Amino acid sequence: MKTYNVAIMGASGAVGQQMKDQLEKRNFPVKEIVFLASSRSAGQEIEFNGKTHLIQEAVPESFEGIDIALFSAGGSISEKFAPEAVKRGAVVIDNTSAFRMDKEVPLVVPEVNKKDLTLHNGIIANPNCSTIQMVCALQPLKEQYGLKKVVVSTYQAVSGAGLAAINELKAQAADFENAPNAEANVLPVKSAERHFPIAFNAIPQIDQFTDNGYTFEEMKMINETKKIMHDEHLAVAATCVRLPVVTGHSESVYVELAGAPTVDDVKKALADAPGVVLMDDPSNQVYPMPLMAAGKDEVFVGRIRQDLDNPNGFHLWIVADNLIKGAALNSVQIAESMIEQEII
Amino acid sequence: MKTYNVAIMGASGAVGQQMKDQLEKRNFPVKEIVFLASSRSAGQEIEFNGKTHLIQEAVPESFEGIDIALFSAGGSISEKFAPEAVKRGAVVIDNTSAFRMDKEVPLVVPEVNKKDLTLHNGIIANPNCSTIQMVCALQPLKEQYGLKKVVVSTYQAVSGAGLAAINELKAQAADFENAPNAEANVLPVKSAERHFPIAFNAIPQIDQFTDNGYTFEEMKMINETKKIMHDEHLAVAATCVRLPVVTGHSESVYVELAGAPTVDDVKKALADAPGVVLMDDPSNQVYPMPLMAAGKDEVFVGRIRQDLDNPNGFHLWIVADNLIKGAALNSVQIAESMIEQEII
Repeated sequence: MKTYNVAIMGASGAVGQQMKDQLEKRNFPVKEIVFLASSRSAGQEIEFNGKTHLIQEAVPESFEGIDIALFSAGGSISEKFAPEAVKRGAVVIDNTSAFRMDKEVPLVVPEVNKKDLTLHNGIIANPNCSTIQMVCALQPLKEQYGLKKVVVSTYQAVSGAGLAAINELKAQAADFENAPNAEANVLPVKSAERHFPIAFNAIPQIDQFTDNGYTFEEMKMINETKKIMHDEHLAVAATCVRLPVVTGHSESVYVELAGAPTVDDVKKALADAPGVVLMDDPSNQVYPMPLMAAGKDEVFVGRIRQDLDNPNGFHLWIVADNLIKGAALNSVQIAESMIEQEII
Repeated sequence: MKTYNVAIMGASGAVGQQMKDQLEKRNFPVKEIVFLASSRSAGQEIEFNGKTHLIQEAVPESFEGIDIALFSAGGSISEKFAPEAVKRGAVVIDNTSAFRMDKEVPLVVPEVNKKDLTLHNGIIANPNCSTIQMVCALQPLKEQYGLKKVVVSTYQAVSGAGLAAINELKAQAADFENAPNAEANVLPVKSAERHFPIAFNAIPQIDQFTDNGYTFEEMKMINETKKIMHDEHLAVAATCVRLPVVTGHSESVYVELAGAPTVDDVKKALADAPGVVLMDDPSNQVYPMPLMAAGKDEVFVGRIRQDLDNPNGFHLWIVADNLIKGAALNSVQIAESMIEQEII
């Protein structure tokens, strides 16, 4: 069996740690592995398959001999180092937004568009966490009934904003009475002018605002969904909201289909879809929630209802671990799919 | 100036306490006031305008001589005592769902349909908290541009489920590491078979499920909105979700209008609407959040965006204090509007 030299860029971050875990858990055919980060994290120890590695400071030469480089260290790091890695023969699977909308770069969720991997030029982009879980649930509906319109409202966990955001939520949550005046330095966006407490709150801002009043996070969901699903004309709208949840993004999604299946048809399509778990039994209070989805690989879908006015309209509640399927697992699945398709 | 004998039924509850506060704060023309509750809470002391009152156990005779009775003690209490109060000449303003969809009972948000108060037969229903704040923001859009479709996803606070739910959230939030295994006895519904932790979670169930897969909370939002806005044909869909927020419901709302105004037109309509505060300046990170709306009277609206595909479509983020405008204040405003319209 062929094995590969793998690098994880951003190994000390929340997603980087999950990437390592996924490679171990899925018995990925690793020959050698290198853990890379900025100089700040260099020297930290990391265990992989029972062996201790040291995180190394990334330099262009770090990618000599690497076959697959998993990047999750921020957009500017990807812009700087991904071309260096490609130059040295590596395939880069990049979890940042740096290359996602680049026409030369496939944006891939294997359950949806793994064939796009054949078109790569060295870099493959991993979509935004909230996009990935949504398209996994939309794809079977598109295939079977046609998809015309998507309106999504998100309920996003703080771990999407990194370990500092988790620590901030933890500190704020411990001081219930002081919630409105809690110290806040991280959310909604570290670099933003104003910061707001997240404990016992809901912040309708993820990432910075664009000129049209939508945030970058909302525009990512809109543009990435069209690109992954190969449909420029698909109507997509998003409102993205940060919640006091540690891990697990939830999404309330309204879709309008071309066809008008029964709600049981829709449930069956989702139950049969790869990577999706149907979790929908209201009479027994069975529906997905972030606390139960955290740590799991799958995309969970429940609360499936036909719209009461439009027979083509359906409502879904989609939950997944934003660090796993939303980031690390999808990156590793991209690599697995490239191996399976003999692209690498 | 005419003054009125007022009773508060459910005086020891979260909403009952807010009703008392609102009567004080708004200098409601109270002649005498009586605080009523079940035998369990009878005997508790309560301050009103500097005078100490004792909560009395409610019996039918408690309503002798009462002009206005504000009820918030659960549906079965309203069913039992509201007719007794009306029989004795009181007007009942009922915050439970017991009479809301009764054709003989006006369901009123004064900013929207105060004229319906003239049709009362002794009982007036106060709508569901999540409905009230939404229709305040929808009404100016309906009046100026016509309203065709509403899709709402809610982000609801635990105080809507009473003091026990607040205490449960507080206890769970203090034990960050144990979140998935936290003891849960109240949410999503006290009487339900299964209970789930709310801290660091999002529960897509509020109230019990109906046969069509929607919850009662969702069907309340759908049916009450049509009734208040006098439009049987208005398409309304709702997904209701409970969050680890103490007070303040948020709503992500997509509307389709008959007209296609500019986003500035929509903002102006909302800025001019009674009871509504426009809070929408993305470049300065100004938007409503539950932590800032808690304790305030108004309905706050922000994140207003035109849909990118449909010029008739708009997205809104609506936040209000669910105990104040969502319950106690609206009840008191109903009474004030009846006085103003000389119905009482």
